[in-house]
Amino acid sequence: MPVSEFDLIERYFAHHGVSRPDVVLGISDDGAVLRVPPGSDLVVAMDTMVSGVHFFPDADPAGVGYKALAVNLSDMAAMGAEPAWATLALTLPQSDEAWLAAFSAGLFALAGQYGVQLVGGDTCRGPLTLTVQMHGFVPEGMALRRAGARPGDVVYVTGTLGDAALALRARSGSAEELSHAHAAFLTERLERPTPRIQTGMALRGIASAAIDISDGLAADLDHILKASGVGATVEVEHIPVSTAFAAMAKHKERWNLPLSGGDNYELCFTVPAEKQAEAEQLLARYPGGCTRIGVIESSHGLRCLLNGEVFEPAASGYQHFSL
Amino acid sequence: MPVSEFDLIERYFAHHGVSRPDVVLGISDDGAVLRVPPGSDLVVAMDTMVSGVHFFPDADPAGVGYKALAVNLSDMAAMGAEPAWATLALTLPQSDEAWLAAFSAGLFALAGQYGVQLVGGDTCRGPLTLTVQMHGFVPEGMALRRAGARPGDVVYVTGTLGDAALALRARSGSAEELSHAHAAFLTERLERPTPRIQTGMALRGIASAAIDISDGLAADLDHILKASGVGATVEVEHIPVSTAFAAMAKHKERWNLPLSGGDNYELCFTVPAEKQAEAEQLLARYPGGCTRIGVIESSHGLRCLLNGEVFEPAASGYQHFSL
Repeated sequence: MPVSEFDLIERYFAHHGVSRPDVVLGISDDGAVLRVPPGSDLVVAMDTMVSGVHFFPDADPAGVGYKALAVNLSDMAAMGAEPAWATLALTLPQSDEAWLAAFSAGLFALAGQYGVQLVGGDTCRGPLTLTVQMHGFVPEGMALRRAGARPGDVVYVTGTLGDAALALRARSGSAEELSHAHAAFLTERLERPTPRIQTGMALRGIASAAIDISDGLAADLDHILKASGVGATVEVEHIPVSTAFAAMAKHKERWNLPLSGGDNYELCFTVPAEKQAEAEQLLARYPGGCTRIGVIESSHGLRCLLNGEVFEPAASGYQHFSL
Repeated sequence: MPVSEFDLIERYFAHHGVSRPDVVLGISDDGAVLRVPPGSDLVVAMDTMVSGVHFFPDADPAGVGYKALAVNLSDMAAMGAEPAWATLALTLPQSDEAWLAAFSAGLFALAGQYGVQLVGGDTCRGPLTLTVQMHGFVPEGMALRRAGARPGDVVYVTGTLGDAALALRARSGSAEELSHAHAAFLTERLERPTPRIQTGMALRGIASAAIDISDGLAADLDHILKASGVGATVEVEHIPVSTAFAAMAKHKERWNLPLSGGDNYELCFTVPAEKQAEAEQLLARYPGGCTRIGVIESSHGLRCLLNGEVFEPAASGYQHFSL
């Protein structure tokens, strides 16, 4: 017997995870009723993942559930927002209960870590596609934006870059086989990125601009530069990479993947020079820390230097990865 | 040259439609920044439409854009909410600019009517799928819910029922050809449903329960009954139908489609007997008005009477229409 939309929602989504006091009415009605704290702005971000485009059709459904939430949490981090509520539109070719159980477990595991409640959404039949919208709060007027970088500001990134892109290349068979330990690390970085929520919130009032690195550092930093009407120089050898990445990246990958590899979900942000010490001290407390990679300049465009020489990055941006 | 996601958003979505003062930051960043008015609850609803499931692949894209917004506005109406902001996740097989231009025009035409601003979303490649999330406001604690109907309450619907279902049957070739004028009316009801926003807002503090009729009256009223722990008797001959419907519906369709036909987007709501006169007087001002069709009872379940005789509705609910 086919399972109805109503049953699916009841079984896998309706009574799972945290219950927040600011949710007046969650899953059960034509809409959710939510209460934004006084003095806060509401921040919303929406991302879609399509089977065969953003994840492999045979991907572990728990990982898909985790990542669908993680990419939206990363947008909250980039805005300096504290995440609160999620909605989910889930389009499924058929009612595959094993898939749904694992997907739901993956999604709620991450939601629980950040105190996020699933408050609504929609399920229907069609090609496997997921859209998550995340909702968070930021004190009024304190949201981090792309526009706001000024000449002299320091450019930082969190964590390490290139891991996800290298894992993806390995999977696609275009890199040699990775050693077991390194492969596990890199795959985890691809499939279960860590949203830098604490860092984003700590940067309120400190960062002059911020973005999350989903399309690749060069492409995403360029969004900051264009929105702010400035340029930047990045010293490529200062871009932080993981031990696994450094050990496994071949030739040009060593410099191109950290600059242009997508799907990374670290933050790139700028800080006025006078707040540099404060920012570095503060962020040292949080996972991923931060690394200075360059400086904002008045001359438009992004200039990359590798050990003092001009470095031309490969065609930038994966624009989400394609199979 | 393929058009990038960035260009698509810029060209068809970023600078269109109304600009609301409560939008601190719209399309342009990792998330939108929004300000909910003090003393208001936020109401959110999300609906997905899949090509080949919820609309014909060759459907007029302006109609698809209109309807993607309309079905979500209908959820706002059912909650008594005033709509404010929309987000859109658009998955497209390819960058079809003619399709996008028409889709965008249809969406913004309806958004403009209700003062709704598109504040964010996502575009990506994949099978044609649209998810819209609508956001609206209701004074704190005043949202209409499904739970709340009490024995003795009067059951009402707005507008006329069965129109969309009859239009769909005609299209699918399972009804005889409709006369030209009637066909135009019924098709319009299917493709461009009118969300009953004013009615929903007027019902704050008056209706004891409300829902929008998307899956069919019998199925949706049953959601109210179950959520409220009550039952109801509906007099089928009192369910309002349009002139076009009455002229064209054949045999059993005459009674079954108004009861079980989906995709209608009228409201069904219950009102305590002592507020009946107030409700009828108030709603007479708004398009669609309201019609009394039954009464809430303590005995669980939905009972249908046709001219005093027990009437068994056809298998209820289209659960969205399938091709």
